[in-house]
Amino acid sequence: MAGLRDELRALLGAVEKGETSPDDALEQLSSLPYRDLGFARVDTHRELRQGAPEAVLAEGKTPEQVVAIARALVEGGAGSVLVTRAGAETRAAVRAALVDAEEHELARAVWVARSVPETRGVVTMVSAGTSDGPVLHEARIRAELLGTSVVVHEDVGVAGVHRLGPVLPDIERADCVVVVAGMDGALASLVGGLASAPVIGLPTSVGYGSAQGGQTALNAMLCSCAAGLAVVGIDDGLGAGTIAALIARGRE
Amino acid sequence: MAGLRDELRALLGAVEKGETSPDDALEQLSSLPYRDLGFARVDTHRELRQGAPEAVLAEGKTPEQVVAIARALVEGGAGSVLVTRAGAETRAAVRAALVDAEEHELARAVWVARSVPETRGVVTMVSAGTSDGPVLHEARIRAELLGTSVVVHEDVGVAGVHRLGPVLPDIERADCVVVVAGMDGALASLVGGLASAPVIGLPTSVGYGSAQGGQTALNAMLCSCAAGLAVVGIDDGLGAGTIAALIARGRE
Amino acid sequence: MAGLRDELRALLGAVEKGETSPDDALEQLSSLPYRDLGFARVDTHRELRQGAPEAVLAEGKTPEQVVAIARALVEGGAGSVLVTRAGAETRAAVRAALVDAEEHELARAVWVARSVPETRGVVTMVSAGTSDGPVLHEARIRAELLGTSVVVHEDVGVAGVHRLGPVLPDIERADCVVVVAGMDGALASLVGGLASAPVIGLPTSVGYGSAQGGQTALNAMLCSCAAGLAVVGIDDGLGAGTIAALIARGRE
Amino acid sequence: MAGLRDELRALLGAVEKGETSPDDALEQLSSLPYRDLGFARVDTHRELRQGAPEAVLAEGKTPEQVVAIARALVEGGAGSVLVTRAGAETRAAVRAALVDAEEHELARAVWVARSVPETRGVVTMVSAGTSDGPVLHEARIRAELLGTSVVVHEDVGVAGVHRLGPVLPDIERADCVVVVAGMDGALASLVGGLASAPVIGLPTSVGYGSAQGGQTALNAMLCSCAAGLAVVGIDDGLGAGTIAALIARGRE
Amino acid sequence: MAGLRDELRALLGAVEKGETSPDDALEQLSSLPYRDLGFARVDTHRELRQGAPEAVLAEGKTPEQVVAIARALVEGGAGSVLVTRAGAETRAAVRAALVDAEEHELARAVWVARSVPETRGVVTMVSAGTSDGPVLHEARIRAELLGTSVVVHEDVGVAGVHRLGPVLPDIERADCVVVVAGMDGALASLVGGLASAPVIGLPTSVGYGSAQGGQTALNAMLCSCAAGLAVVGIDDGLGAGTIAALIARGRE
Amino acid sequence: MAGLRDELRALLGAVEKGETSPDDALEQLSSLPYRDLGFARVDTHRELRQGAPEAVLAEGKTPEQVVAIARALVEGGAGSVLVTRAGAETRAAVRAALVDAEEHELARAVWVARSVPETRGVVTMVSAGTSDGPVLHEARIRAELLGTSVVVHEDVGVAGVHRLGPVLPDIERADCVVVVAGMDGALASLVGGLASAPVIGLPTSVGYGSAQGGQTALNAMLCSCAAGLAVVGIDDGLGAGTIAALIARGRE
Amino acid sequence: MAGLRDELRALLGAVEKGETSPDDALEQLSSLPYRDLGFARVDTHRELRQGAPEAVLAEGKTPEQVVAIARALVEGGAGSVLVTRAGAETRAAVRAALVDAEEHELARAVWVARSVPETRGVVTMVSAGTSDGPVLHEARIRAELLGTSVVVHEDVGVAGVHRLGPVLPDIERADCVVVVAGMDGALASLVGGLASAPVIGLPTSVGYGSAQGGQTALNAMLCSCAAGLAVVGIDDGLGAGTIAALIARGRE
Amino acid sequence: MAGLRDELRALLGAVEKGETSPDDALEQLSSLPYRDLGFARVDTHRELRQGAPEAVLAEGKTPEQVVAIARALVEGGAGSVLVTRAGAETRAAVRAALVDAEEHELARAVWVARSVPETRGVVTMVSAGTSDGPVLHEARIRAELLGTSVVVHEDVGVAGVHRLGPVLPDIERADCVVVVAGMDGALASLVGGLASAPVIGLPTSVGYGSAQGGQTALNAMLCSCAAGLAVVGIDDGLGAGTIAALIARGRE
Repeated sequence: MAGLRDELRALLGAVEKGETSPDDALEQLSSLPYRDLGFARVDTHRELRQGAPEAVLAEGKTPEQVVAIARALVEGGAGSVLVTRAGAETRAAVRAALVDAEEHELARAVWVARSVPETRGVVTMVSAGTSDGPVLHEARIRAELLGTSVVVHEDVGVAGVHRLGPVLPDIERADCVVVVAGMDGALASLVGGLASAPVIGLPTSVGYGSAQGGQTALNAMLCSCAAGLAVVGIDDGLGAGTIAALIARGRE
Repeated sequence: MAGLRDELRALLGAVEKGETSPDDALEQLSSLPYRDLGFARVDTHRELRQGAPEAVLAEGKTPEQVVAIARALVEGGAGSVLVTRAGAETRAAVRAALVDAEEHELARAVWVARSVPETRGVVTMVSAGTSDGPVLHEARIRAELLGTSVVVHEDVGVAGVHRLGPVLPDIERADCVVVVAGMDGALASLVGGLASAPVIGLPTSVGYGSAQGGQTALNAMLCSCAAGLAVVGIDDGLGAGTIAALIARGRE
Repeated sequence: MAGLRDELRALLGAVEKGETSPDDALEQLSSLPYRDLGFARVDTHRELRQGAPEAVLAEGKTPEQVVAIARALVEGGAGSVLVTRAGAETRAAVRAALVDAEEHELARAVWVARSVPETRGVVTMVSAGTSDGPVLHEARIRAELLGTSVVVHEDVGVAGVHRLGPVLPDIERADCVVVVAGMDGALASLVGGLASAPVIGLPTSVGYGSAQGGQTALNAMLCSCAAGLAVVGIDDGLGAGTIAALIARGRE
Repeated sequence: MAGLRDELRALLGAVEKGETSPDDALEQLSSLPYRDLGFARVDTHRELRQGAPEAVLAEGKTPEQVVAIARALVEGGAGSVLVTRAGAETRAAVRAALVDAEEHELARAVWVARSVPETRGVVTMVSAGTSDGPVLHEARIRAELLGTSVVVHEDVGVAGVHRLGPVLPDIERADCVVVVAGMDGALASLVGGLASAPVIGLPTSVGYGSAQGGQTALNAMLCSCAAGLAVVGIDDGLGAGTIAALIARGRE
Repeated sequence: MAGLRDELRALLGAVEKGETSPDDALEQLSSLPYRDLGFARVDTHRELRQGAPEAVLAEGKTPEQVVAIARALVEGGAGSVLVTRAGAETRAAVRAALVDAEEHELARAVWVARSVPETRGVVTMVSAGTSDGPVLHEARIRAELLGTSVVVHEDVGVAGVHRLGPVLPDIERADCVVVVAGMDGALASLVGGLASAPVIGLPTSVGYGSAQGGQTALNAMLCSCAAGLAVVGIDDGLGAGTIAALIARGRE
Repeated sequence: MAGLRDELRALLGAVEKGETSPDDALEQLSSLPYRDLGFARVDTHRELRQGAPEAVLAEGKTPEQVVAIARALVEGGAGSVLVTRAGAETRAAVRAALVDAEEHELARAVWVARSVPETRGVVTMVSAGTSDGPVLHEARIRAELLGTSVVVHEDVGVAGVHRLGPVLPDIERADCVVVVAGMDGALASLVGGLASAPVIGLPTSVGYGSAQGGQTALNAMLCSCAAGLAVVGIDDGLGAGTIAALIARGRE
Repeated sequence: MAGLRDELRALLGAVEKGETSPDDALEQLSSLPYRDLGFARVDTHRELRQGAPEAVLAEGKTPEQVVAIARALVEGGAGSVLVTRAGAETRAAVRAALVDAEEHELARAVWVARSVPETRGVVTMVSAGTSDGPVLHEARIRAELLGTSVVVHEDVGVAGVHRLGPVLPDIERADCVVVVAGMDGALASLVGGLASAPVIGLPTSVGYGSAQGGQTALNAMLCSCAAGLAVVGIDDGLGAGTIAALIARGRE
Repeated sequence: MAGLRDELRALLGAVEKGETSPDDALEQLSSLPYRDLGFARVDTHRELRQGAPEAVLAEGKTPEQVVAIARALVEGGAGSVLVTRAGAETRAAVRAALVDAEEHELARAVWVARSVPETRGVVTMVSAGTSDGPVLHEARIRAELLGTSVVVHEDVGVAGVHRLGPVLPDIERADCVVVVAGMDGALASLVGGLASAPVIGLPTSVGYGSAQGGQTALNAMLCSCAAGLAVVGIDDGLGAGTIAALIARGRE
């Protein structure tokens, strides 16, 4: 936001000095920094404003659209560009278009990392089961691109509570903990009762029947009586990675 | 069921011997043992057939109706009669009508125990919070009336997992464990992963918002990956107490 | 659990005798018995702790992952390993990797039975319709692997109540009854009113429209007024088989 | 409908004969028989058109409004007027206003029966529990006012299936059967599998938790595999009584 | 049911005369008329008992299972056998196995009609849109196989209410009306307000978004204020056809 | 919006002329016209911006809070102030505080009309039943305060479609039609198929059981195939009245 | 509607003059203008009656059926025919059958525009994201075929509120605004608070997890406190385009 | 957690030195620090372990129970004790029992603050409407008791987006932002797109109809595309205040 206020102040200063007419200023007020691709408006300013470059949800877009948006973000100076929920074809197209792009098949992600901020803070990510892997890794990639160090423990479960033992030291030293779980989501309550750092619950759609596509895990996390727990949407690895990085890095 | 088959055999024997005509037998086949009060048919045979006397749900019945049904069950020879979800007025009416009736205000229960079976088996009942008390005690009373020994641990929580420590010995020695929990229901998964006996999850309507009146706890218990866990309906202390007693007593 | 306490006692004894330093003990307390495969933590101890070896849900895992987990469990000394919801490819991979593996196509299950406990107790499993078969057989295989004898009656229905006749003797002699039904789930109420043993309701996603993917059968079973009935999740044959075997075998 | 076509034909005949101008006819086409009370349009013609006089849902109306509507229907020549879901105050107001009105406290109904059609056909109404009484009696009163004979069996249950025995002869001889049940609604499936006449399922909001205010009974009835079963809305005694009477009386 | 009582009476008579021993009679009481195929119990008696031969839901069964069940029903003397929700492969298999089988591609139905009862009564079936066709024709075929005459009007809509005009005469003369509609289901309310015969609402899953797979049409029909309307499950053409035929034929 | 742009232009002009410093301008940009009451920010500008003065939802506010907000709006120059969902106490408090306030008991509304715009356009409001009255009148009052002429027809129903006759001329001449209906909401489809003006569906929570508190009417309206129909929230008379007035008055 | 009344008046006049017999008139009253294709009744009159020609929902119809309906509408004199939700095969079939047909691949629409009304009024359509494109363009095509001018702004978002700047002038000058948004639907509230013209919310099924297939956007729009906002069904571009055009063109 | 590990290490050291026998150590392992009141286990250790003293949910507990728990926490050395959802009677009882207790009527909270940590970090809390006040203040009190500075802006709305202007500076300087909103919850998306600090969405049950008791606001927040946003349960001011304070204070 600071940037926005500064720009406004600069604009008003130019009007005061007669360098810009009121009508031109009005026009400029209407064209804040984004780039129009016709079918998409790319917010090249978000990184400055929010500390997190815009991510691209590939779902519902053609590979060509995704490539065009990603390229525009890179050309707009984004430190990194992350494309999520990208099928094989889209990932290949991005990698063909942007030479230093990397991908993670399981997480269905492809990204370009031009200038990732210096690493600060530690996020510990813990999943209940192996099947939560794709969502966990989407969160991990996002958090790393935003400049945090991420420690991962998969398949910790709750039905075998002793498995939590070796994870405890990493929970203790984390600046933020992300708990990834489907089905009953009980791991979030358990970890939420042990951690002293803020905990982000990341419910997944893993499970069938009464798991209701992640709704049960989501609701269970939301009504957990553990202190210091907040939740993102079902399978929203991107959202969990973003807020976890913001928390772990602290105020800048 | 044994009783039913025996009665049928006896009836057929009487027909064979000419002691009963086919038409009379047909008539008797239609009048199996219940007692008709006009507005209710009291199943005086259930105890023999199922090992559990019929309970009376007071909700939606007048105190007079409840008293009449309870009296009929007692007169029909029930070992015990348990009235659940009974308001103060109904409890008072039953106690006035049946001199040896006892009540539990919190559990909203009133009962007469004429001949409880000799105690066999141990049920350990564990609740997540103090507010689960009414449901827990309904389950406890039912299980005790059916002839089991019940050990109770209230307010064990999950956000403070170490509280579970002193409960473990009673979980180990139980023939059946009942876990009573609202909100996220996570205690059931935790206990389900520790107990070797069958575990009955008893979700409660405790909690607000995303607890959705117990639906979240219910769903979480149903999709727990803990082995050996089955679930009864929301706030159904009667049901949990019944099956827990049947399990703990074993085949008879 | 007994095992866990015994291990703790042994560890503390070693510390007392100076055989183990407190720091080493602390370390060991954190590494309770599981085997880390990187993407999965295999709980090789569950059988000792709970009397039921860990099962593997194949859904959401690659055939390679399933094979690795199954092999680790077998090598960890599991009496049996059951893989559920396994497609043809996964079943073939497991059979190729573990020579004595068996499979059931309809139930989408593949398993290795190294040392099944001596059979004890009888479970009677009753289904409402032919389409409930896959779920019923998953439950049956699980219960048999845990060392119970299982009697199966399929397609008993409720709309033709007389079909229940020949099933009654097996319901009478069971230590636990499992009722498998989709649609209205009414068979559970009917059987629940006849059986004297504990009854486990196993709702299935059979049916369309108002069957709501098994939710109607689940809810109907949960609010049945039959005594001695508890329920597992929709299509959760594994869960039903596990608790039914625990109940039928009784306390060990 | 016959009446409607006849009126149209008569109107067109009058135009042909010059007795009515086209504009007047157009006007008359727009003012088919109802009576306007300002806040309500009373359909005094429904009885002719549909064989069932309009009923008045008292809920959401003041006693004065109910009395005005009921009086208008009576004055419009209705054979009977039934007011449902009427509190004590409304019932008293109707009885004060219409001298020959009768009421049923449990069913919260008050009605005037000026000329009930000659009785034809038999409806057997069966309820699962005593608490279903209010809804059952609303259905019964409605069906009787429409000119059918109603046989009632309350508290038949399903968990004690033998209680159904004495009800069977009345199910056999009925022209239509109404099954009133809350909770799991299983009685509808059971009766639906036994009756040869059409069966109307009438789900009630009796039960708590997973009964979900009648939704479970409703869904269970809708996906019953019993042949010849259709369903009305939750607690809709009026609707069940109406269609049961129409079926039982047959085409007229 | 008459048949069932008569059989019981005959059996008891044989016991009385010493022709049958009580134990044999007990055995016979347990083996009422059905035929066991191993995976399915075919109810060859339903036609006698309920006036409607058992139908076969092909969904969830292999073509071989469907053929075996259908053949058993035919051999058991069924007047007709209707297989619903049958894919092309299953329909072909049935037609190959049973030479006089007919099929309807749109309705996904295949059937054998050996001896349909003499036609009695008229059912008028009205659909809101062309897309409701498959469900409508399943209902029509069922009703015709049960011995009623069916009149069909498709695509009547509600947004163009004048289209209802030419349908009115057939609604007037029907003994039962079936209204087939998805989306808002409003046609049922409209027809329900015009017909004097009982109306069966048959909601379909036609529509997207807020149609919620037929749930909206179902709920709308259930809370219609039209008199004389009952409802079957979503897309349940079989159920609608069955009860419509029972109503239209009247008591037999 | 015009006002907003004009203010911006004026502000920029003042900066250009040196009458306002950039910092002051920045400050003014942050304090657009609203009035801060501490617990509420009253938007005194909305009328200019949107052509509709802010309304006050009394629910969840104390009478004192409501009076303070209403007074601030009046003092801010609002042409009219409408308070909705106001209980008797709140209505009395507003009337005591603002001498020319009027109220409508049924609609639970109280309002002050200082300068209503000259009437332009006609809105016809049609309700399905008498119980929809409160919601209808909230919509009517709102639309009249915004300067439209409203014609009201209550209790038109759908089960007696001929009642729609006398309403047709007012539907024909309307600039916008509002259909108020609970239960099945079918009246919206019917009117939507007849009107040539835009139709606003206003679902109400009238009805019980499957009416699901208005959700069924809402969904039915949303998936109606009638052209030219849009919908507001359940019981949202205020919203319907607002958009109907905007439509009927046309662009200004 | 005017047409309908005029036709009725003409018919009655013919009867008056003896040119038409009452019976013939009755017949004609029953055959209002539609064309019967057997499986579909094409409403060739809707354009006259409602100002909007009937659109064809291709979903659930074969290409042949769609072509037949479209051809009948064209032959019936429709100014334009719009086929929505049409797959590639159906679009090709329509283009082959009707030479001047056009298509929009993304919007899955194909149409023939024979005589579009002279353009009147401006509709501004704003979408939250690129993925809302297909629904937006369905709405745009419909509105243009009904004779309005449409201005489109895609991918305006809400998380970057400054992007709304350049859109404001087009919002200001619109006669109706359509906001197309999935996920949280917040753009509708934001625009609804800025526009002075009526706003139509068009929720889309874009988004996953808690977006619940558009239900969240729909509900959020329905309970927005923005004045002058009404909503159509999820993904219902056709509905939004229709009412937006009706509003923008004003009363005719 | 540090405390827990330290205690374990000390215990093991005592065993090593022979000061404690293994059996005693085992016993002590089972009695971690909590205080048993019979009906409740008070976790006097949580403050050390998690930096947040246990709060007491008064709902479902008697005033006496609440007082006993609060007193035990205070006696256990809690820095502060917060009782939420406390009615007037409970608040009075706590104030009578604990002399320095304070209360907030609107927020239904009562608390004792013995030693609040030195203030660190700033939380900005923004609400959409006046009716969100009770939930906002519960969050504020909690965050202040945990040692943060809280800035409050109420009634910011979204329909009047310019009201957000004066709030921006406080959003910019916050270490964590809490957005409190019911209905459409759109304020969270808007603020989430502007803030650079982590944002906690706190949905409230404010609103009627489609607001669905807060579910719509919750879902909308969960599927917002704003970066850096996580959500707590509906009306869960306590949870939001806790995590906001943890985030704002940073790692300690």
